[in-house]
Amino acid sequence: MSGSPKVVVVLHSAVVVTMDGTLRVLRDGAVAVAGDRIAAVGPSVDVLAAFPCAAQTIDLGGRIVLPGLVNTHVHTSQQLARGIADDVDLMTWLHGRIWPYESHMTEEDSYASTLLCGVELIRSGSQKELYEKHHNTADGRIRVWFGLRQIMNATDRLLLETRDVAQKLNTGIHMHIAEIPYENQLIAQTKGIDHGTVTYLEKIDFLRSNLLAAHSVWLNKHEIGHFSKAGVKVSHCPASAMRMLGFAPIKEMLDSGVCVSLGTDGAPSNNRMSIVDEMYLASLINKGREAYISGTTNPTVLPAETVLKMATINGAKAVLWDNEIGSLEVGKKADLVVVNPFTWCMVPLHDSIANIVYCMRTENIESVMCNGRWIMKDHKIMNLNEDEVISSAVKRANDLLVRAGINLPQRMNYV
Amino acid sequence: MSGSPKVVVVLHSAVVVTMDGTLRVLRDGAVAVAGDRIAAVGPSVDVLAAFPCAAQTIDLGGRIVLPGLVNTHVHTSQQLARGIADDVDLMTWLHGRIWPYESHMTEEDSYASTLLCGVELIRSGSQKELYEKHHNTADGRIRVWFGLRQIMNATDRLLLETRDVAQKLNTGIHMHIAEIPYENQLIAQTKGIDHGTVTYLEKIDFLRSNLLAAHSVWLNKHEIGHFSKAGVKVSHCPASAMRMLGFAPIKEMLDSGVCVSLGTDGAPSNNRMSIVDEMYLASLINKGREAYISGTTNPTVLPAETVLKMATINGAKAVLWDNEIGSLEVGKKADLVVVNPFTWCMVPLHDSIANIVYCMRTENIESVMCNGRWIMKDHKIMNLNEDEVISSAVKRANDLLVRAGINLPQRMNYV
Repeated sequence: MSGSPKVVVVLHSAVVVTMDGTLRVLRDGAVAVAGDRIAAVGPSVDVLAAFPCAAQTIDLGGRIVLPGLVNTHVHTSQQLARGIADDVDLMTWLHGRIWPYESHMTEEDSYASTLLCGVELIRSGSQKELYEKHHNTADGRIRVWFGLRQIMNATDRLLLETRDVAQKLNTGIHMHIAEIPYENQLIAQTKGIDHGTVTYLEKIDFLRSNLLAAHSVWLNKHEIGHFSKAGVKVSHCPASAMRMLGFAPIKEMLDSGVCVSLGTDGAPSNNRMSIVDEMYLASLINKGREAYISGTTNPTVLPAETVLKMATINGAKAVLWDNEIGSLEVGKKADLVVVNPFTWCMVPLHDSIANIVYCMRTENIESVMCNGRWIMKDHKIMNLNEDEVISSAVKRANDLLVRAGINLPQRMNYV
Repeated sequence: MSGSPKVVVVLHSAVVVTMDGTLRVLRDGAVAVAGDRIAAVGPSVDVLAAFPCAAQTIDLGGRIVLPGLVNTHVHTSQQLARGIADDVDLMTWLHGRIWPYESHMTEEDSYASTLLCGVELIRSGSQKELYEKHHNTADGRIRVWFGLRQIMNATDRLLLETRDVAQKLNTGIHMHIAEIPYENQLIAQTKGIDHGTVTYLEKIDFLRSNLLAAHSVWLNKHEIGHFSKAGVKVSHCPASAMRMLGFAPIKEMLDSGVCVSLGTDGAPSNNRMSIVDEMYLASLINKGREAYISGTTNPTVLPAETVLKMATINGAKAVLWDNEIGSLEVGKKADLVVVNPFTWCMVPLHDSIANIVYCMRTENIESVMCNGRWIMKDHKIMNLNEDEVISSAVKRANDLLVRAGINLPQRMNYV
């Protein structure tokens, strides 16, 4: 730790969950923020002593400080479609709802959708890593990746040239991989291989460590081995998996050393766009999945500390950004979340790590700092007018549905 | 509808989701409350005209009014144990954590635990139906049932005498049934039958329509038929099922006409004691379960309207109280929940029933009325001091853990 003229703020008297290499938790800890970086992490008394001239010291009164949560798979343009495709089969979902919605969307609709999604992500303690606009703009917060929707609409040439260009530009590739059984069956049949997409991608030498695979539900053990060997990262989206896809072999991937992170997927596949809820779900459904693997659930699978890694440092690794985000360490970006655990839903705090994963609600997330700036402070979002975002989004969503000719059936007897 | 001198309040300009026999939803509806009862449900203009002398009219500005949610399985005494038994196997859960906790509990601890649990239930829009103290006390809100823990510690004589006394007293029996495979195996072996607990209970003629079975995970199709024929009700606890028990055949039970309701189970089995979250989970995990039944998930299973029935009118039927609660109908108790859906997590409202099940969070629950009285109004709990309940519960929880000698392992490197 050392003093610095840039110090803006020292947050102290907090339970600091660093998620660093040794998983250090400071019971009475502090984080010093200098500009957009973390200048110190340590016991409150030491950090306060090291920065006597801090512009501001904030006593967090025992609150919990976490690294910013990383959402590695989200369709920001689908936020206005929340509620248009619930409880329908996949073909209705695509043909009757999502494609008409997306094809009638204007650029302004997409902007309104992204802002509304941003509000939900901030309130859930997440950062918007995949906000695909302009690489390294917005103080370096926005990075452009290559996006390949899925294998069924990608030629080999597209795949391999994307692989090479991404490598040349030193960036990543994001792609839905092995989402549904049909995808694997089609690839096996048309490509003459013995299993699905991952087997084929390995055969054509597409798999690299800068590939982030979304969902990856239908992998066999050989394919998990391919991911592990190539260093492919995975975005596990628990809610979406339950609704639309199936049980991904998350335990087996983690056991094989695959870096598994968490994503929400889009609003019409999930509805709650919150890594807070995905943490809870990830732990529950992967315990439950064991009932089918071994005959009984296994409550020891995906313990809270593993889930918290998935939501933080693994998320940072998945988006190739763990040199700057994903943990609270000196020199990294000052991205952090302040949690108030002293409410009806989180007490008693016998095991604070378990309570973060199992009990924490979005309403416990009090403040969020990104790049050393508060983007939410005491539940108030700082850099946009939330009421305006909501009213604009609601209006655009209604207009868009009319334009797209989407009529939802009535579930009850409306009068 | 007719006027009445007892009318206290008319709530109007709301989306009123009645959950009545025809599943009527009033787009611009009102509920008139006279004393502890519902005096009218109808279009705002009609209800306001029928009660010109109402003591109070409250304009809900398009908010949603639901019947009070019914939680049919909750261990109120376990609230202080939240976080003491996460991610451990069942034997550790029982022997190392829950039994030492329960055996060192005082009556005052149990009271503090129940109050804290009550705060969480109210904030989640639930009523505390199984508050087992004194039958028909507290303005008729408390009813005493017989509780049988489970078959492995109940003799045939206890089972059958309980059955007869409950019938004589015109009350119900609540019992954990078919929770884990071991239970079924043991019963099959020791009783010489071909399957598990339900087969045995049917054989000894224990099954009746006043039996509420908690969990009921490990039933085969014959046993589902036994439940259906006898009119046994089920409390499905999705989070607890995922963590500890397995996938209950909920779709099959509903298809067979079994009345399935929702429960949270206790805090050490779930952590989030909210029917709001259980609705979301119930829909997701039962869609996902189909991946193992048929090879792919089925997003049409347990649609939102079915889940909302489980949380309201089915809950009322399960606790043999549907003559007074579970739907918004004239003559029933004035038990209702006011939901503010105009926040970041619930908009846009293309499909309000889907959004109630998939998007609604506890923070959307603004007010709760029970017996015609607000027990939470604009997020403030009216009839107890929440801060005092929390601080007393936290202190008692800490003392109790020390007394019980429960030491939790550290999940991370605490310094």
